[in-house]
Amino acid sequence: MKNAIVGQSGGPTAVINSSLAGVFEAAKLRGATHVYGMLHGIQGLLENKYIDLSEKFHSALDIELLKRTPSSYLGSCRYKLPDWTDKQGEAIYQKIFATLKELDIGYFFYIGGNDSMDTICKLAAYGDHMGSDIRFMGVPKTIDNDLMVTDHTPGYGSAAKYIGVVMKEIIRDATVYGNKYVSIIEVMGRNAGWLTAAAALAKDEDCEGVDMIALPEVTFHVDRFVEKVKMMQEAKPSIVIAVSEGVKLEDGRYVCELSDDVRSVDAFGHKALTGTARYLANVIAKSMNTKTRSIELSTLQRCAGHVTSRTDITEAYQVGGAAVKAAYEGATGKVVTLRRLSNAPYQCTTEIHEISEVANLEKKVPLSWVNESYTQMKQEFIDYAKPLIQAELTPVYVSGLPRHIYLPE
Amino acid sequence: MKNAIVGQSGGPTAVINSSLAGVFEAAKLRGATHVYGMLHGIQGLLENKYIDLSEKFHSALDIELLKRTPSSYLGSCRYKLPDWTDKQGEAIYQKIFATLKELDIGYFFYIGGNDSMDTICKLAAYGDHMGSDIRFMGVPKTIDNDLMVTDHTPGYGSAAKYIGVVMKEIIRDATVYGNKYVSIIEVMGRNAGWLTAAAALAKDEDCEGVDMIALPEVTFHVDRFVEKVKMMQEAKPSIVIAVSEGVKLEDGRYVCELSDDVRSVDAFGHKALTGTARYLANVIAKSMNTKTRSIELSTLQRCAGHVTSRTDITEAYQVGGAAVKAAYEGATGKVVTLRRLSNAPYQCTTEIHEISEVANLEKKVPLSWVNESYTQMKQEFIDYAKPLIQAELTPVYVSGLPRHIYLPE
Repeated sequence: MKNAIVGQSGGPTAVINSSLAGVFEAAKLRGATHVYGMLHGIQGLLENKYIDLSEKFHSALDIELLKRTPSSYLGSCRYKLPDWTDKQGEAIYQKIFATLKELDIGYFFYIGGNDSMDTICKLAAYGDHMGSDIRFMGVPKTIDNDLMVTDHTPGYGSAAKYIGVVMKEIIRDATVYGNKYVSIIEVMGRNAGWLTAAAALAKDEDCEGVDMIALPEVTFHVDRFVEKVKMMQEAKPSIVIAVSEGVKLEDGRYVCELSDDVRSVDAFGHKALTGTARYLANVIAKSMNTKTRSIELSTLQRCAGHVTSRTDITEAYQVGGAAVKAAYEGATGKVVTLRRLSNAPYQCTTEIHEISEVANLEKKVPLSWVNESYTQMKQEFIDYAKPLIQAELTPVYVSGLPRHIYLPE
Repeated sequence: MKNAIVGQSGGPTAVINSSLAGVFEAAKLRGATHVYGMLHGIQGLLENKYIDLSEKFHSALDIELLKRTPSSYLGSCRYKLPDWTDKQGEAIYQKIFATLKELDIGYFFYIGGNDSMDTICKLAAYGDHMGSDIRFMGVPKTIDNDLMVTDHTPGYGSAAKYIGVVMKEIIRDATVYGNKYVSIIEVMGRNAGWLTAAAALAKDEDCEGVDMIALPEVTFHVDRFVEKVKMMQEAKPSIVIAVSEGVKLEDGRYVCELSDDVRSVDAFGHKALTGTARYLANVIAKSMNTKTRSIELSTLQRCAGHVTSRTDITEAYQVGGAAVKAAYEGATGKVVTLRRLSNAPYQCTTEIHEISEVANLEKKVPLSWVNESYTQMKQEFIDYAKPLIQAELTPVYVSGLPRHIYLPE
C-alpha cells in the first residue's frame, strides 16, 4: 500500500488542523502505512523537511487536541510554484517528484486557499504530463471565504463567529460612558468582505449591532465616510464601525496606504495591509468633536482557537476525509467543496470539483446582499452566515489555559 | 427598611457585573425594598439618572446572564468629586445627599478602582461630617490589579486569563512560516505591569512562551530593546514580545508619545496611551531584516466575556456580597479586599479595610518578581497569578453567540 503526504499552506486558521486530523485518520483507515506531513508546505518539502505523523500522534486525545489547536500544526508557506513548462521551473518539479517517489507516496493532500490550490493544480498537471500515478487533492481552507464553487470555506465559520462575539463585546464596552465615541474595528479580507460582513451577526435582541460596515467590494470615499459618521452620531453617542483592511479609494489605492506604516509584499505580490482603522480614527478625531478608538482584530481573528464554531470544525474534518476518499477512489487534480442542501434545518455535504475552477480565483460578497447605502448587510447574508457559526467546541482547558499540541522548532 | 443604591465606575471589566449581581442579591436578601442602580455612576446620579434594579431582573436566569455579561451594565463614568470643604464643591455633595434622602437610601455601594474609591472616601467623609447614617462601601474592581491592601482585584484574573489564552494563540500563529518575524503585543496597564506580566502565563509544556516582557515599572531604552531583539532572533526566527502601553523612556515620556496618534486626556489627567507596539514594530522593521507585526489587545482584554476565569467571576460576586454584609453591619468608608489564605490549595477570603488605604494609591509589580535582565517574570509571579485564572465560566451561547443582558440607551 502506497503512503500519503499532507501539507498546510497559506494563512493559518483556527480549524485547519481539524482538516489535517481528517486527512490523517481517513488515510490511516484506508491502510496508508505512513502518513507524512510536509513541514512548511511545499517549500519545506523542497528542502526535504517532513515528518511521519504516525510517530507524533499517540492517542485519540492527541488527535482531539490537534483538532482544537489553532494555526498550522505542520507550519505553512506562501510559496508559488514556477511554471513547469520552462527548464528552470521543471527542475523544481523533478525534485518534488523524486522526493515523493523516495517516500513511496501515492496520495498527496494540500490544505489551503486559492493560492495554495494553484500548487495542486500545477502538481497534478505535471504528474499527468509525466504519467505519474500519484493522486493530488486540494483541501479547502481560508478564513476569507473567497473560494469559488464551494458554498463556504472551512475556517470562515469560526472566524465569523469570533468576529460576531468580539463585536458584541466591543459594543458593550463602547457604550459604557454614554459619551460621544467612535470605534473603528479593522477586519481581515483583502478583496472579499466576508469577514467584515460577519460583524453584522452581532445584532440581536440583546445587542444594538454595528452602525456601519465597509466592505472592500465597495469603493471607499473618506469624505462621505466622515459625513455618515457625523450623521449617525447625531442620533446616538457611541458609533461602532467594522471596516475591511482592504477598502480602496476610487484611484485604486488602499485606504491604509494613506497612513505611514512600514509595509512588506509577499511572494504572491500581496501588500501587507494594516492601519486602515487607525487612519480613519485619526481623520474622525481631527474633523469631529468625539473620542475615537481603532481596533485591529489582527491575527486573533484567524487563530482564536478559544472561540470556534463546532459546525466549522466538523466540516473542516469532513473535507479532509472526503479528499482522502476521493483520492483513494482515483481522483486527482480535484478539490473538495461544500454544498449546502438546505438552510433551515442547515444541511451540508461535500462534492468534488476540478481544482482549476477554484485556483487563483476569488469569490466576492454579492452586492445584492448589501443595503442601498452600502452600510449594512441584508437578511440574505445573515441567513447564509448564521448556520456556519452554530454551536461551540470548547478547548481542552488545562490549568486555566487551552491545551495545544505543537511541534517544537 | 432603608433602600440600597449601587454604581459602577471607571474602566469596565469582564466581571464587574458579577459584583453588581453580588450586591443586588445580597441587598435583596437582607430586606432592601428597592435596590437602585446609578446610571453612569455618580455623574449620572447627579443628573438624577438611576433605575430600580428589581424592575430589570425578572428571574435567576437574568442574574446569571448579568454575571456573564462583560462591561458595566449600569454604564460608567470617570468623574472626580470636588473637595467638599470649599463652597462650590459642597453644592455637589448637597445635591447627591438630597437625592439619596429622596430615595430613602441607607446603603451606598460603588464598584470601581483606585480613582473610584476616591469617590467613596469623600462621600463617607462628608456623610460623617453631616451626621448622615448612610453607609458607603467600596467594591473593588480593575483589570489593572493595582489596588493596595487587597491580594488581587476582581477583574484581573479574567483579563490575565484572556492574555494568557491569546498569547498562546498568537505564538502558534507567529511560528507558522518559520520565517524571521517579530510580533509585539501591546497590553494595558498605565503604571502597573500586572497585565503585561500575565503574558508569562503562556509558557507551558505545550508552548514556548513569550520571548520578552516589558513592564512599565522598568525604564525603557529603545536602543537596548532593539539590541535584545536582534540577539534573540539569532537563536530563533519568531520572537513574540509583550509590552505595556505604559512603558516610559528615561526622560519620563511614554514610548507611545514618540508616535503620531491623536491623543486625549481624561478627567483624572490620564493621557490616552496607544501606539507603543506599533512604534516599536516600525523601529524594528527599519533597523532589522525581519517582518514585524504589532498587535494591540485593546478593549478586548477588559471586555472579553467569552474568556472569563471562574475563580475571578466568583470572587467578583463575593466582594459585592461582602460589601453589603459589612454595610448592613454598620461599616462605612470601607472597602472589601481579598486575602489569600494559601496558594496550594488556593484559598481566599474577604476582609474589610479603610478606604483611605486604597483610594488614589497604586500597587506595582515587585521588581523582585522580574528576572535580572528585566525580560521575564520569575516563578513567584506565576505562583501568584496561576490560581487566579483557574476554571472557566462559559457564556450562555444562544444561536452561536454569547447572550448578554443590557440596558438600551
